[in-house]
Amino acid sequence: MSHDDAFMQLLSRARSASKGLATATSGAKNRALESIAQAIENSVAEIVAANRQDLERGVQSDMAEGLLDRLTLTEERIRGLASAVRDVIALPDPVGEVVRGSKLANGITINQVRVPFGVVGAIYEARPNVTVDIAALALKSGNGAVLRGGSAAEQSNAVLVKLIQDAISAAGLNGDVVQTIDEFGRDGAERLMRARGFIDVLIPRGSAGLIASVVQNSTVPVIETGSGVVHVYVDASADADMAESIVVNAKTHRPSVCNAAETLLVHKDAAERLLPRLLGALETGGVALWGDERARSTSENLRSATDETWATEHLALEMGVKIVDSIDEAIAHIDRFSTHHTEAIVTSDFANAERFLAEVDSAVVMVNASTRFTDGGEFGFGAEVGISTQKMHARGPMGLAELTSTKWLVRGTGQIR
Amino acid sequence: MSHDDAFMQLLSRARSASKGLATATSGAKNRALESIAQAIENSVAEIVAANRQDLERGVQSDMAEGLLDRLTLTEERIRGLASAVRDVIALPDPVGEVVRGSKLANGITINQVRVPFGVVGAIYEARPNVTVDIAALALKSGNGAVLRGGSAAEQSNAVLVKLIQDAISAAGLNGDVVQTIDEFGRDGAERLMRARGFIDVLIPRGSAGLIASVVQNSTVPVIETGSGVVHVYVDASADADMAESIVVNAKTHRPSVCNAAETLLVHKDAAERLLPRLLGALETGGVALWGDERARSTSENLRSATDETWATEHLALEMGVKIVDSIDEAIAHIDRFSTHHTEAIVTSDFANAERFLAEVDSAVVMVNASTRFTDGGEFGFGAEVGISTQKMHARGPMGLAELTSTKWLVRGTGQIR
Repeated sequence: MSHDDAFMQLLSRARSASKGLATATSGAKNRALESIAQAIENSVAEIVAANRQDLERGVQSDMAEGLLDRLTLTEERIRGLASAVRDVIALPDPVGEVVRGSKLANGITINQVRVPFGVVGAIYEARPNVTVDIAALALKSGNGAVLRGGSAAEQSNAVLVKLIQDAISAAGLNGDVVQTIDEFGRDGAERLMRARGFIDVLIPRGSAGLIASVVQNSTVPVIETGSGVVHVYVDASADADMAESIVVNAKTHRPSVCNAAETLLVHKDAAERLLPRLLGALETGGVALWGDERARSTSENLRSATDETWATEHLALEMGVKIVDSIDEAIAHIDRFSTHHTEAIVTSDFANAERFLAEVDSAVVMVNASTRFTDGGEFGFGAEVGISTQKMHARGPMGLAELTSTKWLVRGTGQIR
Repeated sequence: MSHDDAFMQLLSRARSASKGLATATSGAKNRALESIAQAIENSVAEIVAANRQDLERGVQSDMAEGLLDRLTLTEERIRGLASAVRDVIALPDPVGEVVRGSKLANGITINQVRVPFGVVGAIYEARPNVTVDIAALALKSGNGAVLRGGSAAEQSNAVLVKLIQDAISAAGLNGDVVQTIDEFGRDGAERLMRARGFIDVLIPRGSAGLIASVVQNSTVPVIETGSGVVHVYVDASADADMAESIVVNAKTHRPSVCNAAETLLVHKDAAERLLPRLLGALETGGVALWGDERARSTSENLRSATDETWATEHLALEMGVKIVDSIDEAIAHIDRFSTHHTEAIVTSDFANAERFLAEVDSAVVMVNASTRFTDGGEFGFGAEVGISTQKMHARGPMGLAELTSTKWLVRGTGQIR
């Protein structure tokens, strides 16, 4: 990798600027965030115009309806972006928090404190709102941000990043802390994944395919987010009303997000008692159902499920249904097909609840609650950095603290060993 | 990667066995550790015999003296291994520790608890003691362990792993939790680095080259440990006695380890006052010195330092010496050449101490203490899992807690969104 070309110069600018940001006060960072919020509100027409160019290209290239919707920035959505930036101002600054500390027997004090990573890289697709989101969260946590927002949103992202840079500079910090590499195309994304020493952590946001590609190709440490093949297991002893409301809520409340349930597992004893009611409620909610043989024997409306069904994150009003003989079979099915995001059991049995909590190896394991609660906002973190499905560094909903590292501060009076 | 060959079968056995271990009680794990300690003590002759085969091959292949020493297992060292296993028994079990928890407004309780990673992979070279070390630490933290100890120690590792497996089984847990892949040679190491879904985290231990190779080639998340280009900066206001004792201790107390100092930076005002004394004390301690031009102008004994000198982890009685005009120049030099392991300032000036702590971006930053204190034992963690030089997951000395992930346990009474 040549260090003197335009791409490396851009990464160097972000890195260099991030050093000043790392020691900036919360006050200075909050003023920069307020400056960004105001700049967004003052630039609605310009943002809409740039976004229209992206949308026209999207229509010409037959972009899917859902993607076009995510790509669209209306005046209302743009004001929402500014408001989201102001929400970040209100969050506590994680930098400087003392995580642990002690005084050693020799009189040395040691304090582990939160520090910014340095520069966060983000790779995402056709979602200009993520540009503002990540920039604001990175800024508040003292990190530079290098953004690869994808060619589909290139005009929108270019306008937003320019506006963010200028707003940060106007507030007295170095605007170089936020950079876009969209102009470098796919090659830029690949170089970003290998920019050790310039990028400290890479966060992919988007399809399972995009995330898998980043994980496979990146030498920079990655935080995997997102993909959720989420299970609800209705145990033999489940309360009927509770089972219905949790299953319907987990599946239908917002089917397009990662904490929505994709597979319903039902104990055979509960199936006799509850399955017609559960399937009826799901169908009333507009859910198309797949089932294993036993589930299909109870209803004509279920298509035949395969291993592919069990492994699919539908993100739509579709659900697989399987009857199991035991909680062991439910846990084994989850172990095989889950992306280890969130799983829930509905049960009245204490021992089964505790077994499920102990043995299911997912970021969030629930008893008698909707899987929709796996969310930074619901958990009280305020911000939505994403939901980690990996085991290192962060697991489950991530707050601003998960965008930091730590360092140890050691203060002595001349001690030696 | 074929899933039915001998290599994958071995990984599958470790993975499958690790699931039982994840929920094993501390009592059961401690009994398995005591069983291992006893088995080691009862097998001294067998271990020494296997080790002798490795040593003979080492001598034939002209292995360096230092490597041969690390490879050697004497009766005394073997008893030391058993004793190290018993030290691990005494450590608190990190699994199940509640990291955070709260009750949400809707009545749901959330608890973030420590859980094992699953299976830890380790790649190291010619150090059979690491086989016992990692196996014991993994077992205590509820993790399986797949070990690649290198061909040079193959016979020693084979005997040790067999003994560990049998001892674990004899104590009533599944001995398959510990596996060696030495028989698969280099190909095995490469496959281990790509065994996502089977290995949850990979810990390389050894030379900078080995660690770099693992980081570059691994798709499994890696915890980087070790490499330390460690700096001591003697500020203008440094106390003379303190500067001398810290510099000498940091360099000479145990030069072969990663927290030993490699570069001495001296403020020009302190240089006038202190440099002859510091260099004299280092030379008395047997340290061979390199210097920049200004340092060399004060003494004939310094060889000429280059950028390569500043970037080298000598791990020996050698040190680079540079005169700087300001604390800014010292911090800039560190920023450019450090591996971000440990740096220390010796100063009487409060503002400079705080600036150094704030602006130096290393795992451990010290004021007026020897860099030799960067150590899990010194920090009170008990175990020596290694010293992380990366920013994700763990930074600085790692204890057993750093061998765990977390999961969120959510308990409700039927809540939906």
